[in-house]
Amino acid sequence: MKILVLNCGSSSIKYKLFDMESKEVVAQGGIEKIGLKGSFLKFPHGKDKVVLEGEILEHKSGIEYILGVLTSEKYGCIKSLSEINAVGHRVVHGGEKFNKSVLITDEVLAKVVECIDIAPLHNPPNLAGIYAVKDLMGDIPQVAVFDTAFHQTMPSKAYMYGVPYSLYEKYAIRRYGFHGTSHRYVSRRVCEFLGVPYESQKVVCAHIGNGGSLAAVAGGKSQDTSMGMTPVEGLLMGTRAGDVDAGVLSFIMEKENVGPQTMSTIVNKFSGLLGISGVSSDMREIREAVDSGNERSKLAYDMFTYRIKKYVGAYAAALGGIDTLVFTGGIGENSSITREDICKDLEFMGIKLDLNINNEIHGDEAIISAPDSKVKVVVIPTDEEFMIASDTLAIVSA
Amino acid sequence: MKILVLNCGSSSIKYKLFDMESKEVVAQGGIEKIGLKGSFLKFPHGKDKVVLEGEILEHKSGIEYILGVLTSEKYGCIKSLSEINAVGHRVVHGGEKFNKSVLITDEVLAKVVECIDIAPLHNPPNLAGIYAVKDLMGDIPQVAVFDTAFHQTMPSKAYMYGVPYSLYEKYAIRRYGFHGTSHRYVSRRVCEFLGVPYESQKVVCAHIGNGGSLAAVAGGKSQDTSMGMTPVEGLLMGTRAGDVDAGVLSFIMEKENVGPQTMSTIVNKFSGLLGISGVSSDMREIREAVDSGNERSKLAYDMFTYRIKKYVGAYAAALGGIDTLVFTGGIGENSSITREDICKDLEFMGIKLDLNINNEIHGDEAIISAPDSKVKVVVIPTDEEFMIASDTLAIVSA
Repeated sequence: MKILVLNCGSSSIKYKLFDMESKEVVAQGGIEKIGLKGSFLKFPHGKDKVVLEGEILEHKSGIEYILGVLTSEKYGCIKSLSEINAVGHRVVHGGEKFNKSVLITDEVLAKVVECIDIAPLHNPPNLAGIYAVKDLMGDIPQVAVFDTAFHQTMPSKAYMYGVPYSLYEKYAIRRYGFHGTSHRYVSRRVCEFLGVPYESQKVVCAHIGNGGSLAAVAGGKSQDTSMGMTPVEGLLMGTRAGDVDAGVLSFIMEKENVGPQTMSTIVNKFSGLLGISGVSSDMREIREAVDSGNERSKLAYDMFTYRIKKYVGAYAAALGGIDTLVFTGGIGENSSITREDICKDLEFMGIKLDLNINNEIHGDEAIISAPDSKVKVVVIPTDEEFMIASDTLAIVSA
Repeated sequence: MKILVLNCGSSSIKYKLFDMESKEVVAQGGIEKIGLKGSFLKFPHGKDKVVLEGEILEHKSGIEYILGVLTSEKYGCIKSLSEINAVGHRVVHGGEKFNKSVLITDEVLAKVVECIDIAPLHNPPNLAGIYAVKDLMGDIPQVAVFDTAFHQTMPSKAYMYGVPYSLYEKYAIRRYGFHGTSHRYVSRRVCEFLGVPYESQKVVCAHIGNGGSLAAVAGGKSQDTSMGMTPVEGLLMGTRAGDVDAGVLSFIMEKENVGPQTMSTIVNKFSGLLGISGVSSDMREIREAVDSGNERSKLAYDMFTYRIKKYVGAYAAALGGIDTLVFTGGIGENSSITREDICKDLEFMGIKLDLNINNEIHGDEAIISAPDSKVKVVVIPTDEEFMIASDTLAIVSA
């Protein structure tokens, strides 16, 4: 059983082909700059990286290109497309319409289209990928796995904003949260790893990468998460502002004489680590700048860890204390100094790192808390694509 | 020594006259609807409330009216204005220019004028009050006590927003915080009350009224607070939204085709308890509606307590654990059920209420935590006006 996982962004497509018997990735790669000058398909081949340039104007020709490589003599791993049993898609926004992964039908497509309104940047390329597969691969089963679905269990006190209730009724304005596939995976996986029952555990998941969010998970259900209706809320991210006073936004718009779209661009593309440091949106470069004495990078780093620390405390309070704190995502898995700075001085709530073990862990599953730490602190590399493949397999096998 | 304290809002003036030897309030009252139809001066007289209607078009005639009543034969408590030794003003926004109360000089006035830019609704009436007193009472010493001053000790990781750094440089966009006079008073007073040294205590102050904010105070210095550059950030309030995804604001503005001023009005005047419940901005009416089964009032109440609970956890994490949690403000002092709901399930961080004692405390100084609670939970009624009078006395006596 082979399952192709697609993650279609506005100008990119990432793909992974899984063999579900061996649970191995048999092919992977990505297209970038779709519709732009210099678009290309890039994938590993043996020890090399292959880059194939081509005029890839839209998602359909991109996926056609990918399928061509998968079946090519030179780079391929399958003889014909019929070896692919199903396709799983990452779909960003399922609104209040989807609380789990689903087989894609016309009815499902219509609902995903309805969600474009609240995710105008994300859902259209996801849909383009689904339509392209339909055109190129006929009736192959396709499954939609939503970034928001896992968080649909949040109670209303966590997902409602303090704006007029009529705006919730009119536009479904509320917290949805993202990274749901990752939070679902790591919160479950950490319980397996620790040998404790998922159904009774209180877990805070810190998914920290270029984008990032924390989630409070109790009994296997998301109770709260730091991203909101859009991915801009919460933590300081690579280029996203995270939490900001609403009054600040009105202020900036009046002073700079800009409209809501420009304001949205400012808080999404020019804020966060990049906006504060002026150096980079990449934590590795921020850390290098910190080490070489760059003050604004130090500020950006301190804001970054401080906000995560506050969310850990907030979610512990929301859950009435926690059993486990999990780090995942590029920074969470790899940056031991960041984990150390986040966990510092949290002994009052039962969190005590083993600093030596923490220092050694980069990208592996491991307990990094001290033996006498009441809360287990664990690193679990996330694997959203495998979760999408697993959901797809489960649905097409049902 | 008699000190007059003035709190001038855009259409109101509150006043209190203190005798600083006896620490008693010798007169108090307020003017409402300045510049509007039906403006009036209201004050207690013996067991009665006196309401004097009059056409009060601006702040100067309002203060003249107040001074007239203070010296009147029928309602007065002083024979002449010369018995008033100094006037203390609440000034809302001191920006980064003021970290403590100051004697008002021309130089100070110029700086308060500069702060109008970041507090266009609040500083102008504060200034109108100061100018009026100058006109009416000549060279009497006047002192400015800033709502923001106490929070000037926050570290940059707490006060900076994730928006581009250039906006901080250009407009001083950052967290300032408000209710500083209250947080300063209750954080110090609770340590006196408990007989512990202020300089070594970690205190979270929950100032919860129609407006509300939490503050994290360590060693007598504010380390973080939930209101931001403007008073709209943080908790769910009577009519203010508190924390909202920045993406939500752009979304609303585009959908409803409104500009930043209207957006600001929505999050300041039509949100919060009122916006969610559709019933009232007043917690007492919300509680009544909850008790009679109103679901949206229940939602508003749950959001209200849940956010405060999360801030308690966040600030405990920021401070590395806390010694004391203080409740103050109209709701914090009086609503035992609200205090109970906030503190529920926080034993993991050392908070354990004595529910019986908590139920009995309404507006009095009292420890409401259980004897074995690691964190002391205390009710301390706030007294911002007395703090303003005290600061004024200290400055004019120096």
